[in-house]
Amino acid sequence: MSKDSLIRASTPGAAQDLVQARYQQAAFIPDDVNATIVTLFSHRSVRAYTSDALKPGALELLVAAAQSASTSSNLQTWSVVAVQDAARKDRLAQLAGNQEHIRRCPLFLVWVADLARLKSLGIKHGVAHEGLTYMEAFLVAAIDSALAAQNAAVAAESMGLGVVYIGGMRNHPEEVAKELGLPHYAFATFGMCIGYPDPLKPASVKPRLPQAAVLHKEQYDASALEAAAQSYNATMAEFYKTQGMKNAGPWDLHSLNRLRGPEALTGRHRLVEALNNLGFELR
Amino acid sequence: MSKDSLIRASTPGAAQDLVQARYQQAAFIPDDVNATIVTLFSHRSVRAYTSDALKPGALELLVAAAQSASTSSNLQTWSVVAVQDAARKDRLAQLAGNQEHIRRCPLFLVWVADLARLKSLGIKHGVAHEGLTYMEAFLVAAIDSALAAQNAAVAAESMGLGVVYIGGMRNHPEEVAKELGLPHYAFATFGMCIGYPDPLKPASVKPRLPQAAVLHKEQYDASALEAAAQSYNATMAEFYKTQGMKNAGPWDLHSLNRLRGPEALTGRHRLVEALNNLGFELR
Repeated sequence: MSKDSLIRASTPGAAQDLVQARYQQAAFIPDDVNATIVTLFSHRSVRAYTSDALKPGALELLVAAAQSASTSSNLQTWSVVAVQDAARKDRLAQLAGNQEHIRRCPLFLVWVADLARLKSLGIKHGVAHEGLTYMEAFLVAAIDSALAAQNAAVAAESMGLGVVYIGGMRNHPEEVAKELGLPHYAFATFGMCIGYPDPLKPASVKPRLPQAAVLHKEQYDASALEAAAQSYNATMAEFYKTQGMKNAGPWDLHSLNRLRGPEALTGRHRLVEALNNLGFELR
Repeated sequence: MSKDSLIRASTPGAAQDLVQARYQQAAFIPDDVNATIVTLFSHRSVRAYTSDALKPGALELLVAAAQSASTSSNLQTWSVVAVQDAARKDRLAQLAGNQEHIRRCPLFLVWVADLARLKSLGIKHGVAHEGLTYMEAFLVAAIDSALAAQNAAVAAESMGLGVVYIGGMRNHPEEVAKELGLPHYAFATFGMCIGYPDPLKPASVKPRLPQAAVLHKEQYDASALEAAAQSYNATMAEFYKTQGMKNAGPWDLHSLNRLRGPEALTGRHRLVEALNNLGFELR
């Protein structure tokens, strides 16, 4: 795929096709495209993999990409746990709502919002570190882990690997922490399955909301929302049809159903309690 | 830079040099490199820009890259506000601790954790959306905004632009929300300055912690931390010296000083109160 993306990058038409797939309408004509942008535009969540293992050195390369991302004040408040053991992947799959692709992927990365490293250094040096008890510190760590993870995802995709994020790591935070031996002040933000995409079960680029709904100029402008949501409901209905997938109903109502109340949050309604149990005070 | 990165990608030696710059020691020999990985490895925070404006269509391209990132359950709980107005950039610079590069960059993007869109659709349809009041929903939105932003950052850098994240948007969340006309349930997670790097003030790749400190295999392992932190303190001291920058002291003590207590958090010790004021209940 790395060679492929170089070839595709030389044809701006490919980027245009990908923009068409993303918006299902002529949103804009991309100019100034390159291999990286084609890689970014090509993203799709991949849940079916071949049995091929990653090449030696691939994990270190992904981590170097992750560490190349920005991190707030260079605090580097994240870690990653690389899981390849079949029994551990099985247990993590169970904890994440029995997601089979966690068992099947050759590499499962768990991205960790990690304030434990600085806490440990604070204790060692005997210096104050009360700032770690604030919501701000938790948010910084969660964002740091997300920026790092996204760089790894992009690097993986540029190498021809497929990835999918696993929010299900938050269904049972304490159990996940125990499984991974996380110290207090560390929280598994999400997981990421990585493997070579199974060519027999290809994934498609998923359409997103029209830019008018997410891009605001100078100030937030909600006036485009209703038309954008209606248009996107139609786009997604057509997408599910062409994919031969069951249509779960209009995007907006389907999304709202996932947020209807605590019973719909797959255990995550108790996130504050779980974070407290893991040492985060969230002041 | 897009052509440049294609050229550099054909020379694995460039990736190796970048790994050397990132770790200041022979961490590993990267294999299977491509233009995207070279772009990722090349990241540096850029705070000085030429006076050149971005090309027409560049903003839409960055947003398409951002929308190509994964988003939890396809909820797309983020927005971005693109600020180019000089007076508004000036006010935002003031709110972020008077950061001059916000005034100087041709494009300032503010990334927004946005639950307002779904709330608005929930009200329109008259359906329950109590899930939005939970910490989980806020965390999803913050992570969604981070994944989107990082894709935009990578796209920008592949186009030869430089970026720097601005956590200072969280110093005065209510004032920032007012300046940007954010509705309730929307929060400016961070900003991002974008512009063409000033060749007279080049930025360097910043070293990061040894991989042993952040990469854990199967289970979290803190045993490498002390040696890694010591080694990194030395690396950073040398880095500041070669850059002709003032050394603020060992990395660990300097980092801990930023987290010594509420008085060090540049206003962000009241983040929970600010989020509550912006409508987030964080249950």
